[in-house]
Order: sequence, then structure tokens, then C-alpha cells
Amino acid sequence: MESPARPAPAPAALLYYVAFSQLLGLAVVAMTGTWLGVYRGGIAWESALQFNVHPLCMIIGLVFLQGDALLVYRVFRNEAKRTTKILHGLLHVFAFVIALVGLVAVFDYHRKEGYADLYSLHSWCGILVFVLFFVQWLVGFSFFLFPGASFSLRSRYRPQHVFLGGAIFLLSVGTALLGLKEALLFELGTKYSKFEPEGVLANVLGLLLAAFGAVVLYILTRADWKRPLQAEEQALSMDFKTLTEGDSPSSQ
Amino acid sequence: MESPARPAPAPAALLYYVAFSQLLGLAVVAMTGTWLGVYRGGIAWESALQFNVHPLCMIIGLVFLQGDALLVYRVFRNEAKRTTKILHGLLHVFAFVIALVGLVAVFDYHRKEGYADLYSLHSWCGILVFVLFFVQWLVGFSFFLFPGASFSLRSRYRPQHVFLGGAIFLLSVGTALLGLKEALLFELGTKYSKFEPEGVLANVLGLLLAAFGAVVLYILTRADWKRPLQAEEQALSMDFKTLTEGDSPSSQ
Repeated sequence: MESPARPAPAPAALLYYVAFSQLLGLAVVAMTGTWLGVYRGGIAWESALQFNVHPLCMIIGLVFLQGDALLVYRVFRNEAKRTTKILHGLLHVFAFVIALVGLVAVFDYHRKEGYADLYSLHSWCGILVFVLFFVQWLVGFSFFLFPGASFSLRSRYRPQHVFLGGAIFLLSVGTALLGLKEALLFELGTKYSKFEPEGVLANVLGLLLAAFGAVVLYILTRADWKRPLQAEEQALSMDFKTLTEGDSPSSQ
Repeated sequence: MESPARPAPAPAALLYYVAFSQLLGLAVVAMTGTWLGVYRGGIAWESALQFNVHPLCMIIGLVFLQGDALLVYRVFRNEAKRTTKILHGLLHVFAFVIALVGLVAVFDYHRKEGYADLYSLHSWCGILVFVLFFVQWLVGFSFFLFPGASFSLRSRYRPQHVFLGGAIFLLSVGTALLGLKEALLFELGTKYSKFEPEGVLANVLGLLLAAFGAVVLYILTRADWKRPLQAEEQALSMDFKTLTEGDSPSSQ
């Protein structure tokens, strides 16, 4: 009881795991770039290379940035809750904008080449991710940032928001794996079974993607790594409770 | 404090979610059978239909049964802990044996047809799932059932076992999705983009698979649905603590 306001240091193991997740995430982005650069001719908007914008944007936005957006509450343990929330929301905005560019790229490419849209399992999962991501962001923003829901409503919604966020992230990783597989089979065909360098590189990329998803999930689910409640937040919660007394379960 | 030994009833919502997960799981198995029966000529061991044994066994073993094996601690809340553990271990044995038949089927089919093995991302993920599943089962069995580890070692290993079990299950679902995609692209090729009935059925199957994974994950992660500690277990833990006092963190 000497200094209850002193910030608790982050567990050392958490920092190692976060560093490892960032290494994996950057490796995934770098390998995606290498794959597109070495085997697919690079990236451009005004040519057949427009397709390549799609995987790169999706990996940066919906895998790497979305994963990092989920980790902010574990990394920024002693900052004001509101600051951390704003960072969490902003990273999701960046992720969404980058993913939107990737989405426009593939639809535009399909239109120019006369290919059909939205027939594959990858595309169905991708559209599902997009819709869920957008709805989750809107509801999260209006409940937790502006205008903000009542204290009791927030408390009931928070666990659902956390679960749905993790599920959307995992579905994003799964959708990326499906897309990678699709791109490989379309291009390599039966050569895939000859252990072509492109196929091996893409398989390693797929394993790294799955590993990034697993490490982020591990950090998020470890009970003793959850963000500790700050003194300031407890006071804020109490203020909020008073303001919304009619809604609070502990009122009366 | 009137009757502390009276079994607590399962939360009503948990039962609905478990029922929903079972509906989804059975729908996945039924749709896999339908897909193989209607579009792939059915199942047989001694012919080219041997391949079809692979997806069916994997879906039954590594998706449906593995998922259900994880749910037993939520469903059997008031049985003796040891009985529930044995059921959990046994369901994993069934899952493993069925999956092994599916694995032998695809290797045998490849050998007969002269196809290469283990070149695709699906196969790499599948082998990873198999190895992790087997190691996890062996370690789990020797720590929690026979011969059993010390109380403190179990307590430290349990959260890792739970996380790894969930991760292996999710990787199994992801690997199934990759395999489904592979089977579709190999067979349908460019017809996939014409919204062929087989492609649409397989896409719906893929979404149901993802939904089964999500609902099982939701049930497992809901904090207030965790299995309550039974009076008997607390006593057993204390006995165990006394037996292994040198290892217990509370000794001395």
C-alpha cells in the first residue's frame, strides 16, 4: 500500500512475445513484397500488375495493422485509457483505408480483365471480414468513444467486442491463406507439385502468417498479461456510474 | 452457505450455444458427405474414390470430434473431474484414429496415382496439425492422467495446454478450408468462376466450417461459462499438494 499509483512494469515475457510478434508480422509483409516483386513482376496501378496491390494491401492492413491494433492494450499498459482507445481506433482506421485500396484494386482489375467477381470462398470470406470489421468499428466507436454508451451497457458489450475483434482478426488471417493458395494454384497449376521456388516461398509465407496469428492470439488470451485497471479509470468508471445511475446494475 | 455441494446448473445460454455448435458441426459433416457423394462419386478404399476418404475423415476427426472434445469441460460441469478428463482424452483418441485413416487414404492414393506428396501449403499445415495434436495429447495424458505431474507443474502447464488445444483446433479448421479450396480449384478450374453448383455448395460448406470454429471458440473463451471448481476437486488438489509438498509453491 506504499505507492498504489506507481505504474506497474510490463511483464518481461510479454515484451519478448510482442517483439517476436512484430518480427513475424514484418517478415510476413516483407515476404509478401518479395513474392510479388520476384515472381509476379512487382506492383503498379495502371496495368495487369494492379492485381498485386490487392495481396500487399490486405496483408499490411487486415493482418499486420489489425493485429497490432489488438495489441495496444497489452503494450500501453500505463497510459490513459482514452489515449490507448484512440490509438486502437486509429490503427483500425489505417487498416481499413489500406484494405479498401486493396479491395478497389482487385475489383478494378477484374473489371478491366473481364473476370467474374465474388465467386470463390476466399472472396466470400473476404467480404464477410470487411462487413464485420466495419460494423465492429462503428459500434465500438459509438459505444466506447463517441457519444459513448452507459456504463452498464459498455460493461456488457466489452467482452463481445473483444471476442468479435479476435475472431475477425483470425478470419482475416484465414482469408489471406485462402487467397495465397488461390493465387498459387491459378499461376503454378501442376508445377506447384514440382516444389517450384515460388511455391516453397509461398508455403513458408503461409506458415509465417499462421504463426503471426497464433502469437497475437496467445498475447491477447494470457490472463496475467491483461491491462491492469488504472486508478484514474476506476475513478472515471465511478463518475460514469453516478451519471448513469438508472442504468447501473449496482444502483438502488 | 446453505448447500455448497449442490451442483450449479449450467447457464441456459451456454446450452443454446452448445446446441447451435452441434447443429453447425453436423451440418458440416453432412455437407461434406453430400459434396463427396453428389459431385465426387462417393467413397471407396480400393479405387480412385480413395481420395474422398481423406476430406470426410479429416472433417469428422479433426474438426467435429476435436471441437467436441474441447467442449466437454463446459458441458459436463458437475461430473467428477477425472471422468471428464477421460472423456476429453478419449474423444481425442477417436479423433486421432479417424484422422489417421484419412491421412493413410491420401498418401496411399498419391502413391497409386504417382502424385507428389507434401508440396502444398495445405499439406504442410496438415502435417503440422498432426504433429502438434500428437505431442499435445501425449504431454496432456502424462501430465493430467498418467502418471501425472506435480500439482505446481500441472497448474503452470494447464493454461499452455488450453491455449495450444484451441490453437490446434483453429489450425485444423484453417487447414480444412485450404484443402477444400485446393480440391475445388483442381477439379473445377475456371468453371469455379461460373458459379457452378459444386462451387457454391463448397463455399457454403467453407462458411459453415468457419462458423463452427467461431462458435466453439466463443463457448471456450466466455469467462462466466468456465467449469466451476467442484468441492471434491479442491479436496483432491489439497491431497495432491500434501503428497508433492516439495514441489508446491505454498510449501515452507
